[in-house]
Amino acid sequence: MSRQILLAHGGGGRLMRELVEGGIVPALGKGVLERLEDSAVVGEGIVVTTDSYVVKPLFFPGGDIGRLAVSGTVNDLAVTGGKPLYLTFALIIEEGFEVEALERIVASVRQTADEAGAEIVTGDTKVVERGAADGLFINTAGVGRLLRRFDIGSVRPGDKVIVNGPIGEHGLAVMSLRANLGFEGELKSDAAPLFGMVEPLLRSGLDIRFMRDPTRGGVAACLNELAQGAGVGVVLQEESLPVTAPVRAACELLGLDPLYAANEGKVIVVASADCADEVVRILALSPYGRAARIIGEVVEDAQKLVILRTRIGGERIVDMPYGEELPRIC
Amino acid sequence: MSRQILLAHGGGGRLMRELVEGGIVPALGKGVLERLEDSAVVGEGIVVTTDSYVVKPLFFPGGDIGRLAVSGTVNDLAVTGGKPLYLTFALIIEEGFEVEALERIVASVRQTADEAGAEIVTGDTKVVERGAADGLFINTAGVGRLLRRFDIGSVRPGDKVIVNGPIGEHGLAVMSLRANLGFEGELKSDAAPLFGMVEPLLRSGLDIRFMRDPTRGGVAACLNELAQGAGVGVVLQEESLPVTAPVRAACELLGLDPLYAANEGKVIVVASADCADEVVRILALSPYGRAARIIGEVVEDAQKLVILRTRIGGERIVDMPYGEELPRIC
Repeated sequence: MSRQILLAHGGGGRLMRELVEGGIVPALGKGVLERLEDSAVVGEGIVVTTDSYVVKPLFFPGGDIGRLAVSGTVNDLAVTGGKPLYLTFALIIEEGFEVEALERIVASVRQTADEAGAEIVTGDTKVVERGAADGLFINTAGVGRLLRRFDIGSVRPGDKVIVNGPIGEHGLAVMSLRANLGFEGELKSDAAPLFGMVEPLLRSGLDIRFMRDPTRGGVAACLNELAQGAGVGVVLQEESLPVTAPVRAACELLGLDPLYAANEGKVIVVASADCADEVVRILALSPYGRAARIIGEVVEDAQKLVILRTRIGGERIVDMPYGEELPRIC
Repeated sequence: MSRQILLAHGGGGRLMRELVEGGIVPALGKGVLERLEDSAVVGEGIVVTTDSYVVKPLFFPGGDIGRLAVSGTVNDLAVTGGKPLYLTFALIIEEGFEVEALERIVASVRQTADEAGAEIVTGDTKVVERGAADGLFINTAGVGRLLRRFDIGSVRPGDKVIVNGPIGEHGLAVMSLRANLGFEGELKSDAAPLFGMVEPLLRSGLDIRFMRDPTRGGVAACLNELAQGAGVGVVLQEESLPVTAPVRAACELLGLDPLYAANEGKVIVVASADCADEVVRILALSPYGRAARIIGEVVEDAQKLVILRTRIGGERIVDMPYGEELPRIC
């Protein structure tokens, strides 16, 4: 039987890495692409990124596909050390889509781009017949100017792992809505453009080693990529992990782990131990970073594992996710 | 009843302009976007463009969606005066899609990018469930360095209109295949990356006023946009229009006009009369420009009409298309 694409190929986990690393990148890639970052630093201090957005439903508590499409791309640039300058905006629309919904989404795109200080400079509109797409898909690409360059190889045992607030909010807001859990009032997506929060860090002389946005695959996938890329281990303290009560409740109902749930307004920062508190203080100056905190530490580990130290003193391995339970979270 | 998106909104014609100019651009746009070009010249001599590709079927005589996705974006940069440097590559894949077909498409992307001298620097992969997309959609965005800047306002009566070869080949190749006309052996898409052909023009000191790639909506839409943008008329000579016998035959069978059919390897160049022959000579040095020729002339016309002067001496107005007969040509 011929091989086919599975939903899990899109989940941001191990299966997706196999597809991308095993098939797509070797066929396409020369130097830059092979680093497999979400953004590419190209010549002349320019950063380039792209993402398509297929979230379902298009509107959810805390945001919509338009806010997501700008935030995701802006954040990819920001964590690579880039100041977002220009965005492209491409629509694939299913025949019959409501113009009023399109107008709301476009307004949301504009508002989020304005907040991020990025300009939408060019676009494209395609329409496909009924049944050939599901409502609306968006692609945004971003061009930024590099303010600071990070090297994952600079991460050292003893470095601290910091997050700017509660995890899993985007994933659980979307999944609860789809599962009709009735959490709509309490669970909100964290989708937000984070360049304003990150900029002071990029401009500081602080000893920051690495940044990444924990989107598909959540904090678990992000930290496993860190461990693999830097050749280190990571130990997380469960009691330090910020998880809101509604996210915890929804996770229990859905049988999910907030470590694996998608975030769209979070950044993981790895910084040397002596400046970690200062990084937390700077993040907390932003409305998107008020609950920033240290959640763990980089350790020496030839096995490159991510370990969760639980409240009761146990330990469990936080694996790289294989696929994703549900597609179309972003 | 609420307004809904129609297939014709994606056709590259009047209805699409109404949607984009009336709704999307006013909501999004500040300076650059409002010029409504397919590419945007942004600060520091950089050109940025984006396009999504939804062509059906994915493989067609003369190319596939991968060749199209690189050619279309490279050509948008080239006609804006930009040398393509970096491309992004984003996939939306329907669950169940054959991995072997994906691999063929990715190989085609790489080959076309190599031919264009552009590097694929970053990408994204999303998978949606069966029925939520139709096989595969691709988005590419492009970043280029501006070699020369054109101003549509510099177009003057007396300027010549040049095309680099036969028109309508891409549109008719795809439509004949879908209609099962059995032309597969003769009708081939012209999809090709044109920067190599265009570069000597960009680097020449020749008095070139304007370039545009006549894709969706064909030469008719392209010249109507020229007439509107420059405030001039255009007179085409039917006997000069390069149309191959298979394209003409397929047009007759399908009731189509080659002036309205999509091209993916053509460029319209407007140049002053005294250098038009030299432009044709330079285009003809490229394998993609061997049949280059002058097809018409810019004239004074307060009504900004595009007129076709027929072989028997008559005249007819070549209108801006309203929508498009068939969607998903590109």
